Amino acid sequence: MHRTHTCGELRLQNVGEKVILSGWVNQIRDKGGLIWIDLRDRYGIIQILIEESSTDTETIAKARSLGREFVVKTEGTVSERTSKNDKIPTGEIEIKINSLEILNPSKVPPFLIAEETDGGEDLRMKYRYLDLRRPNILSKLQLRHKLASEVRKYLDGQKFIEVETPVLIKSTPEGARDFLVPSRMNPQEFYALPQSPQTFKQLLMVSGFDKYYQIVKCFRDEDLRADRQPEFTQIDCEMSFVEREDVLQTFEGMVKHLFKEIKGVELPDFPRMTYQEAIENYGSDKPDLRFGMKFSELDQLAKGKGFKVFDDAEKIIAISVENCANYTRKQLDELTEWVKRPQIGMKGLIYVKYNQDGSLKSSVDKFFSQEDLKAWVDKCESKPGNLILVLAGETSLTRKAMNQLRLEMGDRLGLRNREEYQPLWVVDFPLMEYDEEMGRWHAMHHPFTSPVAKDMEKLKDTPKEVRANAYDMVINGIEIGGGSIRIHDREIQQIVFDALGFTKEEAFEQFGFLLQAFEYGAPPHGGIAFGFDRICALFGGVDSIRDFIAFPKNTSGRDVMISSPSKIDESQLKELHISLAKK
Amino acid sequence: MHRTHTCGELRLQNVGEKVILSGWVNQIRDKGGLIWIDLRDRYGIIQILIEESSTDTETIAKARSLGREFVVKTEGTVSERTSKNDKIPTGEIEIKINSLEILNPSKVPPFLIAEETDGGEDLRMKYRYLDLRRPNILSKLQLRHKLASEVRKYLDGQKFIEVETPVLIKSTPEGARDFLVPSRMNPQEFYALPQSPQTFKQLLMVSGFDKYYQIVKCFRDEDLRADRQPEFTQIDCEMSFVEREDVLQTFEGMVKHLFKEIKGVELPDFPRMTYQEAIENYGSDKPDLRFGMKFSELDQLAKGKGFKVFDDAEKIIAISVENCANYTRKQLDELTEWVKRPQIGMKGLIYVKYNQDGSLKSSVDKFFSQEDLKAWVDKCESKPGNLILVLAGETSLTRKAMNQLRLEMGDRLGLRNREEYQPLWVVDFPLMEYDEEMGRWHAMHHPFTSPVAKDMEKLKDTPKEVRANAYDMVINGIEIGGGSIRIHDREIQQIVFDALGFTKEEAFEQFGFLLQAFEYGAPPHGGIAFGFDRICALFGGVDSIRDFIAFPKNTSGRDVMISSPSKIDESQLKELHISLAKK
Repeated sequence: MHRTHTCGELRLQNVGEKVILSGWVNQIRDKGGLIWIDLRDRYGIIQILIEESSTDTETIAKARSLGREFVVKTEGTVSERTSKNDKIPTGEIEIKINSLEILNPSKVPPFLIAEETDGGEDLRMKYRYLDLRRPNILSKLQLRHKLASEVRKYLDGQKFIEVETPVLIKSTPEGARDFLVPSRMNPQEFYALPQSPQTFKQLLMVSGFDKYYQIVKCFRDEDLRADRQPEFTQIDCEMSFVEREDVLQTFEGMVKHLFKEIKGVELPDFPRMTYQEAIENYGSDKPDLRFGMKFSELDQLAKGKGFKVFDDAEKIIAISVENCANYTRKQLDELTEWVKRPQIGMKGLIYVKYNQDGSLKSSVDKFFSQEDLKAWVDKCESKPGNLILVLAGETSLTRKAMNQLRLEMGDRLGLRNREEYQPLWVVDFPLMEYDEEMGRWHAMHHPFTSPVAKDMEKLKDTPKEVRANAYDMVINGIEIGGGSIRIHDREIQQIVFDALGFTKEEAFEQFGFLLQAFEYGAPPHGGIAFGFDRICALFGGVDSIRDFIAFPKNTSGRDVMISSPSKIDESQLKELHISLAKK
Repeated sequence: MHRTHTCGELRLQNVGEKVILSGWVNQIRDKGGLIWIDLRDRYGIIQILIEESSTDTETIAKARSLGREFVVKTEGTVSERTSKNDKIPTGEIEIKINSLEILNPSKVPPFLIAEETDGGEDLRMKYRYLDLRRPNILSKLQLRHKLASEVRKYLDGQKFIEVETPVLIKSTPEGARDFLVPSRMNPQEFYALPQSPQTFKQLLMVSGFDKYYQIVKCFRDEDLRADRQPEFTQIDCEMSFVEREDVLQTFEGMVKHLFKEIKGVELPDFPRMTYQEAIENYGSDKPDLRFGMKFSELDQLAKGKGFKVFDDAEKIIAISVENCANYTRKQLDELTEWVKRPQIGMKGLIYVKYNQDGSLKSSVDKFFSQEDLKAWVDKCESKPGNLILVLAGETSLTRKAMNQLRLEMGDRLGLRNREEYQPLWVVDFPLMEYDEEMGRWHAMHHPFTSPVAKDMEKLKDTPKEVRANAYDMVINGIEIGGGSIRIHDREIQQIVFDALGFTKEEAFEQFGFLLQAFEYGAPPHGGIAFGFDRICALFGGVDSIRDFIAFPKNTSGRDVMISSPSKIDESQLKELHISLAKK
């Protein structure tokens, strides 16, 4: 037997019990007559005491030979500590040992196995199995498990059925790039790995599954940004005989359930905001509502006063930053440089200080009177002591830049508290967006997204104005999920395909089996997919998803621990009926 | 709103309620003045009644235009039926409708959507989304969901953590063939899809996860037998600081939990049988214990009496078949032909009829006296009325053939009742098996399987005799799971690698990162993996796993519904740095 207890469960009430414990040596302190070992496992840390006076020399020698991360088994008696440690749950007791067995030695780990480690990212990824021993990483994966478990508990309770959809599917030219898998049995043909189970979940609705979900791996062969992974996990859901409101209620309920069970937080009902409102008021379709600084448009007030920058601008946007009227010249210059960086791309930044005494001081006093400026601060519903920041230029660029500036000011002022949660639904997305490069309209979500009923007639002439029956769930400025009501009516589907410029042949080539399925009685249906890695990071209070994935890949798509991808044998290529392209 | 209730939940107590229901038209009966529609959804079937006398002509016309599988929405009042149907839960009521809306028409389905369908396998697979509407298929996938849910409930309760391991991993030349995925970002390199998360789960043990599980897709590019799928699902588990007994208890507990929750059956403790016993007594490492006919070896009794077939045989094996002494000549001839088929491969079949009157009649009366035959039936612990069947030949072939014959007789006599469950653990598998073709020893499980402690010294000289600390769970002759205690000691690992003929370089090339990980304090650990599709079929009472997979592939690895695999664009190949081999 390797253990009677784990390293985390013994307490004062166990004093006197004979126990067997196994775990990793976290730390050793050798004070001559006394040797202490901190023994660690997944469940906690417990102190082992070896008294030289009462222990045989062999055991003493063995204890002195231990190094960090050795795996040991020890038998002993639970005793009350003389000097207690109130930082750990086992801190009132220690184990006085009778015997010590080294189950496995360990080389010195290449970095410290502790919350604060000295290992850099690359080293930790190469030795990910050691990185995973760090309690903060382990706890992230435990949180992930708990989240998945609560998601299932909630959806099972709502009568959803989890159905596994296939991983080896068919490549479609639309959308992101597929990972492909050559077929050995079907020469010159390829499977694709799914970017999402979208078509399969719609087929399951046609099949009458009524309520489907799956926590499922999806794959995208994209150039990886810092926080993207080629394989990622979705909570994928679909429901039949529903309207938008049913879907929103069901999944607002799911996220409320998660917050209650995991965080002990009762979230109020989620506000709704249209895409248009989000863009106009926050310059983003995923606004962070933990703080104000809502946009005010100054076009009406600030144009025609001879300030060329404004007069030439398509849009003039202001935000009011609380209690920052005392910003120094240096701070304002630095902010100006910040918005002029190529990532933001603005030409400059205008400010108005609304001083505590009611006076107004701006960077454009030459062009605007105190009355003019007073009208601005009134428009911004600003209070004395606030700082108004103004950007101007082309509408879309200026909104994006002001969104960035707003988030930056939120960060600087500590308004983006990780323990505060402000969810919302963003609804009424445009159905289509124009792809400048391709010179055609694209489905913003996917071509099965239903238009909002009353916009249907605009599809032909003013497609830009057509709103989709689509929705995103946003929390703290992060889009954690999105979905739509799907088109189940063939005539409407045809109109949308027409508007997207799909010929009948193209549509059939790409979606043939789904369109065919729709001929046999498709119910009205809709769904949503959540980025599960993203939800984990949100609940874990960090930005990066990487530590919530046991074995992540780097930005080149490599797993540096197992050295994958790797070269393969010529014979394997041959079996797959492919050859390497010449370099 | 599409519905206030589902089609399965209304009862007599709802009479008088106004309801909205949506679903599929399962059947229509038009008796002139009265039209009945059976409306179906996932939850059940409910009868809709349209009375011509009290319904507007438009609704009547709409009702008459309906076809099977149309999707309709109807509003009406719950009423008590005059003639009740006790075969369905809603059989005491019907809905008298006020309005009827066709949500979606349907083409006539290519086969009957009913438990007993007229659709052949190929047609049903092409229209799998319609096949899935059949209540018996739907219920199989609901069972699968329930099983997965109970597996998670049990393992979560035992403090296991579900961890997602990567799908894009590294190809290893050992074992079955990998599916490969060319990397775009790492030219001329390939990922492989996992045949199992074996190495990752062992790494998680090194990481101190202590108890891991995952319900996970695995992939094998093998020529598919009738009931194999290129992608299949495992319940994959691993535990640290355990010995064999801990693993067996934990997972015996899991399977008992499933039987209790799903079937309401309390299974007794599972018997244990060594591999050697299983082979000697049943000719199989997965014996079906629902019935007897244990093997008896007649070598001692039947040799040296001048019957050349026996005298030349390496092994003579008998089974005693209850109450079949009255088999006719024709029946016995047919059985003889059965064992002579190439799939079985025996030269003939010997029988002894142990008649009710105690007399003995055999096909080899020329060579054996009544006393000889009496000794046989005694050895078989046979009762009067039984039929003794004897096969002889090379040991391994004869055991295999007798296993087949035993199962066949079990089937013929109706002894393999699908509602009876006889589980057992088969333990002490050989560590290695000799690969005639390769001329070397192979790990029977995998090269990290620990030998049984006391056999360690035999590794060098008599590897054949070394037993592995490996175990299979078998129920009703089906292996549903298997695993082993792993080697965590580097010296033992080296000895096993040596015995398997791995050079250090080969071992490092294949298992480098795992061997390296083991240098940093690997705990003693062991695990098991269950074939989840197989468990579903067992609980569903059928042999084929196919109907427990929502979208299965055929024996060529094709998904005929979505036409996958398929040709891809030249541009896609180019991006992946590969080209098609010339035909």
